[in-house]
Amino acid sequence: MPRWEQGSGERLRAAALELFREQGFEDTSVVEIARRARVTNRTFFRYFPDKREVLFADADDLRAALVQEILRGPEITDPLGVVVRVLARHDWEGLAPRGALRERRAVIAANPELLERDLVKQHAMASAFVEALVRRGVDEGVAPVAARVGIQLFLTAYERWLDAAGGEEDLVALTDDLLATLGTLALTGPARVAPDAR
Amino acid sequence: MPRWEQGSGERLRAAALELFREQGFEDTSVVEIARRARVTNRTFFRYFPDKREVLFADADDLRAALVQEILRGPEITDPLGVVVRVLARHDWEGLAPRGALRERRAVIAANPELLERDLVKQHAMASAFVEALVRRGVDEGVAPVAARVGIQLFLTAYERWLDAAGGEEDLVALTDDLLATLGTLALTGPARVAPDAR
Repeated sequence: MPRWEQGSGERLRAAALELFREQGFEDTSVVEIARRARVTNRTFFRYFPDKREVLFADADDLRAALVQEILRGPEITDPLGVVVRVLARHDWEGLAPRGALRERRAVIAANPELLERDLVKQHAMASAFVEALVRRGVDEGVAPVAARVGIQLFLTAYERWLDAAGGEEDLVALTDDLLATLGTLALTGPARVAPDAR
Repeated sequence: MPRWEQGSGERLRAAALELFREQGFEDTSVVEIARRARVTNRTFFRYFPDKREVLFADADDLRAALVQEILRGPEITDPLGVVVRVLARHDWEGLAPRGALRERRAVIAANPELLERDLVKQHAMASAFVEALVRRGVDEGVAPVAARVGIQLFLTAYERWLDAAGGEEDLVALTDDLLATLGTLALTGPARVAPDAR
């Protein structure tokens, strides 16, 4: 994992994840993370304001990058597909190896404070996507549905991707499967076939 | 609003909402809420562990009630429709008048700590719905999509319902509109028409 070992920031992330997994998020201190990463406390605070942000420091950059993809892409005729594909095609393993992403998820799931933070980041992502879609001419009534549903579909696919034992599953293929599932779900309901029957 | 005035619990809720709106959540104390509701501090703590829970005390009961609806209903052939309709048909104005629900939303949106709590409750709702759908025989690959997408559709409709100026909009009709929007979105993408073209 050469990329993971590059600099102090990467070493701090890896050390924090290890410690959070070994002894829990609550019981891990900044001092311990810095020691494990072989840097000073001062170096820690040059990279991150606190231990929670070690897990979320990339979220704002990520959101900005994905919004740029929506704003720069070709004309949007399929807003749900655009949301899902912008997320699925992102180079997640460029952030960290899949094993580390899986560890990160386990740490977040085990701590209510981290789960809250993760959900807030997802919420901010949805709001930013709605705005970007509307700027690209998507109807204001349609954009929130496309953004919110697209993000949920992606998150469901992302979980399966992390769970894939051999690591061979393709995230784009997984999200396309879920888009197909959604198509079936959205059209098979009696309310959609015969609105008066409800 | 006779129901709102019934007991100390209702008066505490109304007083808390008023104060949160007037002076902000952060700057409102339990002592002020109790005073405005004309009850003792001790009475406050008989109803709520802290001021944040005034806004969320019903969430667990609500989740349990909605899960029961899913478990007790007829055979599930339309899981997305079931999720959306269980939510849309709930008697939200039985919890509080629509004006108070709107105030509650404004208070939550204005405070990051409350927004986090609200998102955690939504997340718990989705997990409980997935489990209930699977218990009712819905495929394990389909249930997360139905639960998560259904909740997002409902939340989008609920916001419109709260925003409806005259208060005349019907929540079930609004969610059916969004189901129709989703049906269009889910089927118009090029990926779904011609998978090989992506």
